[in-house]
Amino acid sequence: MLKNLWTRTLCALTVALACASAHAQPTPRGAFAQPTPVKPYLEPAIARPEQDKAAAEKLAALEKKFGRKPNILILLVDDMGWGDVGAFGGGLLIGAPTPNIDRLAAGGLKLLSVYSQPTCTPTRAALNTGRIPTRSGLTRPTLSGEVLKANPWADEVTAAKLLSAAGYRTALSGKWHLGEGDGSQPHQTGYDEYYGILSVISDLSQQLDKRLYPDLMLRPERLADLQKLSPAAITKGRKGGPLEIAERLTTTDELGQIDQKFADYSEDFIRRMAKDQKPFYLYHSFGRLHNDSYPAKGYEGKSPAGFPQRDALVEVDDVVGRLIKVLQDTGQLENTLVFFTSDNGGNEDLMPDSSYQPFRGGKGSTWEGGVRVPGIAYWPGMIAPGRVSDGLFDLCDMFNTPLGMAGIADKIPSERFIDGIDQTSFLLADEGKSKRDAVFMYAENALMAVRWMEYKLHFRVFLNQAAHRNLDESINVELGMAPWVYNLYMDPKEQSSQGHSRFEWGIPQVLQRAGRHSATFEKYPRKDIGLRKPGG
Amino acid sequence: MLKNLWTRTLCALTVALACASAHAQPTPRGAFAQPTPVKPYLEPAIARPEQDKAAAEKLAALEKKFGRKPNILILLVDDMGWGDVGAFGGGLLIGAPTPNIDRLAAGGLKLLSVYSQPTCTPTRAALNTGRIPTRSGLTRPTLSGEVLKANPWADEVTAAKLLSAAGYRTALSGKWHLGEGDGSQPHQTGYDEYYGILSVISDLSQQLDKRLYPDLMLRPERLADLQKLSPAAITKGRKGGPLEIAERLTTTDELGQIDQKFADYSEDFIRRMAKDQKPFYLYHSFGRLHNDSYPAKGYEGKSPAGFPQRDALVEVDDVVGRLIKVLQDTGQLENTLVFFTSDNGGNEDLMPDSSYQPFRGGKGSTWEGGVRVPGIAYWPGMIAPGRVSDGLFDLCDMFNTPLGMAGIADKIPSERFIDGIDQTSFLLADEGKSKRDAVFMYAENALMAVRWMEYKLHFRVFLNQAAHRNLDESINVELGMAPWVYNLYMDPKEQSSQGHSRFEWGIPQVLQRAGRHSATFEKYPRKDIGLRKPGG
Repeated sequence: MLKNLWTRTLCALTVALACASAHAQPTPRGAFAQPTPVKPYLEPAIARPEQDKAAAEKLAALEKKFGRKPNILILLVDDMGWGDVGAFGGGLLIGAPTPNIDRLAAGGLKLLSVYSQPTCTPTRAALNTGRIPTRSGLTRPTLSGEVLKANPWADEVTAAKLLSAAGYRTALSGKWHLGEGDGSQPHQTGYDEYYGILSVISDLSQQLDKRLYPDLMLRPERLADLQKLSPAAITKGRKGGPLEIAERLTTTDELGQIDQKFADYSEDFIRRMAKDQKPFYLYHSFGRLHNDSYPAKGYEGKSPAGFPQRDALVEVDDVVGRLIKVLQDTGQLENTLVFFTSDNGGNEDLMPDSSYQPFRGGKGSTWEGGVRVPGIAYWPGMIAPGRVSDGLFDLCDMFNTPLGMAGIADKIPSERFIDGIDQTSFLLADEGKSKRDAVFMYAENALMAVRWMEYKLHFRVFLNQAAHRNLDESINVELGMAPWVYNLYMDPKEQSSQGHSRFEWGIPQVLQRAGRHSATFEKYPRKDIGLRKPGG
Repeated sequence: MLKNLWTRTLCALTVALACASAHAQPTPRGAFAQPTPVKPYLEPAIARPEQDKAAAEKLAALEKKFGRKPNILILLVDDMGWGDVGAFGGGLLIGAPTPNIDRLAAGGLKLLSVYSQPTCTPTRAALNTGRIPTRSGLTRPTLSGEVLKANPWADEVTAAKLLSAAGYRTALSGKWHLGEGDGSQPHQTGYDEYYGILSVISDLSQQLDKRLYPDLMLRPERLADLQKLSPAAITKGRKGGPLEIAERLTTTDELGQIDQKFADYSEDFIRRMAKDQKPFYLYHSFGRLHNDSYPAKGYEGKSPAGFPQRDALVEVDDVVGRLIKVLQDTGQLENTLVFFTSDNGGNEDLMPDSSYQPFRGGKGSTWEGGVRVPGIAYWPGMIAPGRVSDGLFDLCDMFNTPLGMAGIADKIPSERFIDGIDQTSFLLADEGKSKRDAVFMYAENALMAVRWMEYKLHFRVFLNQAAHRNLDESINVELGMAPWVYNLYMDPKEQSSQGHSRFEWGIPQVLQRAGRHSATFEKYPRKDIGLRKPGG
């Protein structure tokens, strides 16, 4: 038996990890609901024709009522842990009530099994392109002032681009972090308008906070290049136009205001759209909860916990409430899908001022704490209130799903592989189930783990060198003889692998899926844009 | 500074741990809301006269309406982890929805900071007597067939006894686990009636399950004494009468039915009480979720997860729903405080069929995972729906609180120390706050940790020898130079002590409380009933 398992594991690991020589394995039928190939360049999906029909009817009735396609509002928080949200077990528990976000969860569909990538840039790449980062090359956070070998956006297509072409007004308000160079900026990649920051809060604070970064800030010769390449500023742009400085940031107090400014921009955008004849796609991408946290005016000590991250969480919740209210005030709430989520798990390396997840690991790891994020789909009249589902949802599905809702799924380009799945009917049908069969979890270019049903099978894992160091001091190691398997219903904290003793029946199923997944790289090769590890 | 801290720490540790020589320290005033001494034999409480008045008015109006004192229904689940309940972040997440318990939480007061003792017997002792276990001597689980040096109940007084004397009908339905010998049985210690098991499910299953206990079951010479001293049976008794066998349990199938039988008994009791003129105090003490789990009829595989513990969780939830419905059907719902909780954290040693808590550690430890339990106070018309509080609540408060609600707080005996606090007004006043200032956490006779505000300060900790072994293979160790301190708002998983770097201001506060607490042992000595460690 051991030999048998070993042979199977090795065989599939070969397929999964050394993709160049991989071959698609035949799909056995009958045993389980298997995903159905839709098109050769699309991730196979579980066929659910009845709920597709129900969702299509709802959308048709809504279009008739409003005379246009529905709006999409994506609320992406930075580094928010699964447990930060009250409705997911946090809130007051961690000294930061989140009543507005909780109301969305109670009034819509609470998604318990939404998966991101382990860090910022990869998740944002997946959400914008529908492709896992190893395909686009955006496999790790881009760094301020870093010059890439190739522009990832030369041949990637965002959902915003397709929606803009189909008559939507598309906007990014807030954090981009998908390339700062010419050709990589949001208004050059599909967004009709952009207002925000090209990188990330910490790239700005390191130019502003002497207390945290004395080794940089007090050495002008170190700071000079950085300030030239990536000045601390809010920038903006319109499709076809140049990148402009909207506002230079010269103090941490000013930096602390950025989420208020992003909210102002989004609020203005939503108000403008109410008067427009076009549907909109607004990607509201918070600067918070990423370090470093500087309180906006009135927020210092506002949370019961009183720490900066918790005050920032309270501010994020307030902004969510503000934007929902504007949708309501402008009569657009019932014609807008609101999708709330985070770009990765909370960063526990920041202890004690860190986000919270009940799971093992945090940002930067492929343990649940790094990649399982809160997810809420809210749409009064379209999504029944009080729904809760643990159906699988990968944030790359948020490429396909808006396109599905806008009726332009047929505009998805066919010469590249798309990992996302159109989850429109999962979200909209009253008894909707996920159409996703598996989630493939990556760290950079390595397939680390696969989630299937309630199981998670690891090929490689992150080990912490210190108690809670996930991003800064963890190591990525290969497993011994058998994969590690956790039943996430029984062991949500991934404490006790039960692969060999209790999951032999399922391992071949997961390996077969990993094999099929890896085989896609044969026809659709990965890109290297210069983010690979030196020597890697 | 280090020396100073060290001196202070040592000083207070001496006070806290070597109680014989301890002296009460003067209470400094002004800096924080300090608890006020009520009576010398009562734990000091934070004075909240306005909310006390509001609660008293509510109770008076209710008594006028119903013409009697209110009923008390305590629902105590065995070994339920904080995260098992949907409203506390579990439920569907762990493959076991708990809609009935969630409804109680949504319709009443969800208590985020309820503390038990780390194991069964100690918590039950605290809840019944209002005294921490080191006072009553019930410091660890009694074992089947174990003969104690002294009957703990010779001089302990239960809430049931005081309520019975004051005209209540008192009943225990389900698990006792506070002594099996003559004089220690529930109908001899204050319960007018009793139907249940004297020990714990695993003490029964070890006599019934050959697959789990072949080393005992297949060796008749080992089994004989056990079967004689503590036969596998449901027992019953009435005040003044003998202990009777209600039903012998001869198979695991029969054992699987016990919670249904306890529910039948409680249901019948509640129906009887509706016709009676007396108020009631019903302590419904589940056999589940303690190992070993055998499904009741119709429950095998009923949970989405399909594992026995999860099926048991679904059954517990159904029983909660059943009992609430009987209260409603008999017109008593608005005259009954329902208090739902668990006796300690989930037992993670049972992986993979184990309960879940998002915190560090599990049953048997004084990490949050061992002692922080779900708590819900539900009382339509008396407790405003939708309340959530992280105010401190120790399960020994459930001695005083029912007495307070019944108007017999003055009947609490004065010759012993009572650690519980009357939390009536915390539960009933619409903006009620906890009157508890600190929770003292024990393992057997050792003061392990103190919770104060959002901080937890450890003097000793449990370390796991294996990844998730809390009860069976952990060791209890003394700390190094400084206590470990966790800010539970910022670090609910107790990952990163911040005592010396960020809590120097508060350590003297906590030490002063530990000193005051330990000084109580001078006047009120601890008891040794024979449960101390051999050689200890």
